[in-house]
Amino acid sequence: MFFASDNSGPVHPEVLATLAEANDGYAMAYGADALMDEVREKIREIFEAPEAAVYLVATGTAANSLALATLCQPYQTVFCSPVAHIHEDECNAPEFFTSGAKLTLVPGGDKMTAEALRTTIAAEETRGVHGPQRGPVSITQVTERGSVYTLEELEALCGVAKEYGLPVHLDGARFANALVALNCSAAEMTWKAGVDAVSFGGTKNGLMGVEAVVFFDPSKAREFELRRKRGAHLFSKHRYLSAQMAAYLRDDLWLRSARMANDNAKHLIDGLRAKGAEFLHEPHANMVFAAFPRAKHQDLFDKGAMYHLWGGTLEGDPDEMLACRLVCDWSIGHDQIDAFLALL
Amino acid sequence: MFFASDNSGPVHPEVLATLAEANDGYAMAYGADALMDEVREKIREIFEAPEAAVYLVATGTAANSLALATLCQPYQTVFCSPVAHIHEDECNAPEFFTSGAKLTLVPGGDKMTAEALRTTIAAEETRGVHGPQRGPVSITQVTERGSVYTLEELEALCGVAKEYGLPVHLDGARFANALVALNCSAAEMTWKAGVDAVSFGGTKNGLMGVEAVVFFDPSKAREFELRRKRGAHLFSKHRYLSAQMAAYLRDDLWLRSARMANDNAKHLIDGLRAKGAEFLHEPHANMVFAAFPRAKHQDLFDKGAMYHLWGGTLEGDPDEMLACRLVCDWSIGHDQIDAFLALL
Amino acid sequence: MFFASDNSGPVHPEVLATLAEANDGYAMAYGADALMDEVREKIREIFEAPEAAVYLVATGTAANSLALATLCQPYQTVFCSPVAHIHEDECNAPEFFTSGAKLTLVPGGDKMTAEALRTTIAAEETRGVHGPQRGPVSITQVTERGSVYTLEELEALCGVAKEYGLPVHLDGARFANALVALNCSAAEMTWKAGVDAVSFGGTKNGLMGVEAVVFFDPSKAREFELRRKRGAHLFSKHRYLSAQMAAYLRDDLWLRSARMANDNAKHLIDGLRAKGAEFLHEPHANMVFAAFPRAKHQDLFDKGAMYHLWGGTLEGDPDEMLACRLVCDWSIGHDQIDAFLALL
Amino acid sequence: MFFASDNSGPVHPEVLATLAEANDGYAMAYGADALMDEVREKIREIFEAPEAAVYLVATGTAANSLALATLCQPYQTVFCSPVAHIHEDECNAPEFFTSGAKLTLVPGGDKMTAEALRTTIAAEETRGVHGPQRGPVSITQVTERGSVYTLEELEALCGVAKEYGLPVHLDGARFANALVALNCSAAEMTWKAGVDAVSFGGTKNGLMGVEAVVFFDPSKAREFELRRKRGAHLFSKHRYLSAQMAAYLRDDLWLRSARMANDNAKHLIDGLRAKGAEFLHEPHANMVFAAFPRAKHQDLFDKGAMYHLWGGTLEGDPDEMLACRLVCDWSIGHDQIDAFLALL
Repeated sequence: MFFASDNSGPVHPEVLATLAEANDGYAMAYGADALMDEVREKIREIFEAPEAAVYLVATGTAANSLALATLCQPYQTVFCSPVAHIHEDECNAPEFFTSGAKLTLVPGGDKMTAEALRTTIAAEETRGVHGPQRGPVSITQVTERGSVYTLEELEALCGVAKEYGLPVHLDGARFANALVALNCSAAEMTWKAGVDAVSFGGTKNGLMGVEAVVFFDPSKAREFELRRKRGAHLFSKHRYLSAQMAAYLRDDLWLRSARMANDNAKHLIDGLRAKGAEFLHEPHANMVFAAFPRAKHQDLFDKGAMYHLWGGTLEGDPDEMLACRLVCDWSIGHDQIDAFLALL
Repeated sequence: MFFASDNSGPVHPEVLATLAEANDGYAMAYGADALMDEVREKIREIFEAPEAAVYLVATGTAANSLALATLCQPYQTVFCSPVAHIHEDECNAPEFFTSGAKLTLVPGGDKMTAEALRTTIAAEETRGVHGPQRGPVSITQVTERGSVYTLEELEALCGVAKEYGLPVHLDGARFANALVALNCSAAEMTWKAGVDAVSFGGTKNGLMGVEAVVFFDPSKAREFELRRKRGAHLFSKHRYLSAQMAAYLRDDLWLRSARMANDNAKHLIDGLRAKGAEFLHEPHANMVFAAFPRAKHQDLFDKGAMYHLWGGTLEGDPDEMLACRLVCDWSIGHDQIDAFLALL
Repeated sequence: MFFASDNSGPVHPEVLATLAEANDGYAMAYGADALMDEVREKIREIFEAPEAAVYLVATGTAANSLALATLCQPYQTVFCSPVAHIHEDECNAPEFFTSGAKLTLVPGGDKMTAEALRTTIAAEETRGVHGPQRGPVSITQVTERGSVYTLEELEALCGVAKEYGLPVHLDGARFANALVALNCSAAEMTWKAGVDAVSFGGTKNGLMGVEAVVFFDPSKAREFELRRKRGAHLFSKHRYLSAQMAAYLRDDLWLRSARMANDNAKHLIDGLRAKGAEFLHEPHANMVFAAFPRAKHQDLFDKGAMYHLWGGTLEGDPDEMLACRLVCDWSIGHDQIDAFLALL
Repeated sequence: MFFASDNSGPVHPEVLATLAEANDGYAMAYGADALMDEVREKIREIFEAPEAAVYLVATGTAANSLALATLCQPYQTVFCSPVAHIHEDECNAPEFFTSGAKLTLVPGGDKMTAEALRTTIAAEETRGVHGPQRGPVSITQVTERGSVYTLEELEALCGVAKEYGLPVHLDGARFANALVALNCSAAEMTWKAGVDAVSFGGTKNGLMGVEAVVFFDPSKAREFELRRKRGAHLFSKHRYLSAQMAAYLRDDLWLRSARMANDNAKHLIDGLRAKGAEFLHEPHANMVFAAFPRAKHQDLFDKGAMYHLWGGTLEGDPDEMLACRLVCDWSIGHDQIDAFLALL
């Protein structure tokens, strides 16, 4: 009954198998391995972007920070949601990698609206050189609260960025979960909507630790490579990153795993709903923010369930509704979910 | 016949096996996994340092840069060899992670001498606030040219640093190869000699990509943790770093592999010597800088040998001596070496 | 009729006279001039802080950024008002000088309340190493909207900071105006209330360009000096900064000028009130945020008045109330103010 | 008898007079003052560069660091002399402002040779993304040892930079002294030779603290403005910087003062030569590095002479030759120099 995070689950066996296969003899270091060629071509194919620059790093924070540093000048500001991972969960990594750019929070919830984004952008840079200058817009898909932007919403946000000539970054730590939820193509969810650079997550969806960064306009590619090296994120034995990503893309493992995760979440949501739980956010992918009586939480923890309470503690009125975050990865089985629900 | 680098060889099978074992169910993220406890205790035991702070990162550049950033203020300078990896091969990563500290090169070869270090330190900070202030001394063991500092040399260098109250960092990308060469204890090669922080390498010695950073004085531990996170080098699925390092330390795999690498190099050196090759640096560990006639290089490359020429090209007088760098990892067999020698 | 800013007015004649006096022969460079000794002693006396470290820089942004960089680590966040100068008007200088720290905005108006500050601080650093760590609190006195914190309010804010062990910075670009408004001592408005470091402004109050930075705990003094030099803010011909500040402190010029500025503002406020203007913020010092009909603004601009509209433009209904910011410096005479009021 | 530095002398009376004139009523802040228009036009005229971007800052370190930050990426390295001010005397300011670029020292003396520069540039960036990338060349004119590059030498250095597509920065802290020594035009000594950006010094030549930064290609102008603001080097009461620079340029004060300084140095050199002093560097402008017996130094210091010894102390054999640095500014009279020489 492990719902704490999709970054705590195991690696998919197909990934381990590919790692083992890759472990044969010598390979060129630093990204010149043959598996990286396979990965690059496959990602270009998936994104229908034959010119795209494709790079691998090992953490989501590295993917986001390096992508933003490549898109943003130090005297600019990045527009993002107040609950964006880049703002709340990266210990100032974006500020570090951009050499001191600012993050400007677009008021609202987890999902930015085009209106709020436009108002926020318009209010910035009205002070000449005195204030920060407008920089990239960063969108998280799936959001930190488990919502998925529709294609229309994405297009509207990118449209606002384009009005101001600003580049768009997509934090796709759960890219596959969103894609499966929208049932659209990777191109539709990115460059066709107006996205310029993507953090294409793998770690939360069954890899050990690999994320791709994709730039649709390759003119920034060399700068990214240098920033990656300078950030100590270029791996000498790169083939083991490539192997993970290659396995991820072969036979649509990435989509299969995301579907499993989302299906698991759906199974959980249906059960929760049946038990009278309330939902803080409309769950679209594999994260669920639900509330049910405090006493039930106590009970679940006592029985070994693992997950995070959300904005409250076990101390208090046992009948009061208490919120929690439940995340399903690909590996959790329906039996685990049913065991969890049975305890409710 | 692959002598290009010890970062291009395969991962030791025991490491893959431990990774597979670790891939069972859920594990706490971000370093709170049980394998990390094993690793921490084992490293403290190896270093005879029960209070040491121990952390894992995935690249040598990250280990060096984060260790230096924790020891160095931005208005200071790091003292190192002109051929130090931190100076030549990290694309300004130390400058980046220290927020703009300088590197001051100690004149001489790959090995710094205590005299040159003292003269260089003394000459710095004679300009009050105008020049950079004295900061840490960084020593590479094995050096970039395959030499190993003796314990006496290390003690002398650390002694100079201590005269000036400066901390000492040891870049131990090939720590195990040096230890095996010196046949001493890890404590003797580090804190007993005066070293404050170590980059304890694993990647070049049979891991996929894991280095430990060890601080003997744990007072900087929290700062290191925050800098690691801010640098995007904290892994969510940390257990897969822990598993690699755990395998490395179990049953002395790290020492076994280093002995194999050094023995391979010795076999190569003996053969080269017999063939009349000249040596640019006295080879102490698993790196060999040798010169032999240009025509031989051409021949070797034609037959598939892989290694780097050192300061010259294949164009020119076929009889002229031309230098190269040959690196042996644990995995290259004597048969490969013999095949190489046979072509000479 | 110049109400655009107190940084556009002339330098006080006593300052120019002291500059001319100081221009005699040779003087030690970089702050070792005799006038700096006078300044240091005088500021220690004014603040009743005989151990305080005192430094001069030439811009308010330098004073704030260097003070914050000395108090804040790159993985921390500074707590401040959403309208703080450090957030809105310094083009990411605090982020630059702190090597990438964040600014966390305390919800509310120009004045932070102790409650809002406590809530904001409490919410930060609940994510372990993942989020930014708590750093200094920065308070602006006079605020950006012309309000002055009472001593009780300052004590309450500093008290919250101390609960969490955080240092407090006071942005006193208009320090003298606030002091005159509160009619208290400099010590009461700073360290007695719990402030650790002050940007003690001079430029807006009759100097060419000099601000003092005062640290009550001198243990950070050397670091500040090095950061000042590294930031290119150490003047070789420092005596000309010292001379300005010396003139400012002699015969209480700083208080005389601030009283003139505040009195000018009071005269303006009384007149505005009589004419039926509305006030957006309670004016406490020398800045006034007032609203009156659009047509009047047009008229004033036509007649040569200089000031900034606040959140609106001249286009629109002539009878609608339109806000503006009016700043009085020491030099604007009552005749100018009366001329302005007469046009209303 | 003050020969310690040209940054310790007084401000020229014409500068003070212009400051007093400028102190009339209100002026637009932040560089929008009318005097800045005069300065910009005059500098464009002097440099025969009608499109040049022209900015003022208050310290030489700011001029150099901001110019370099605008020309250099953080993953690049700046090529300069081992005795360059940017390397030895700015406490890592270039590293700070460039967000962590490196400085690569061109072997040799104070003057770089085209050959040494070419060799150094060629050796850099031979490691792909692993080493720093080639960045700007920074030339100091007058050098830190009092030499002046000839036009041919400047052209040769710039030519090497251009071979590699690198921009050239000229640190002209003593620009006027060099120009007078070469008796050429400002255009010849800069863009006609291949220089892209100049730190055009005023402080050492009779101003309080003003340096101009000139970019011949204005495409980087906006970036410079933003970096200046972010670096806290944009003055609100900018007219007092403009006034100094305006006075400097009016009636060729800058050239008159430089001629006086160089003439003073010539008078000193002639006297020193007559007394049998030895010269460490060929003196071309207003700095003299001379050696004479230790006993003479003691005598001079006892009589009140002020200057820096160069690489030795007063302790030792009284007859031994001991070197010193003697700097003449515009204001030191021949009487002072004669008094000094009389004591030799």
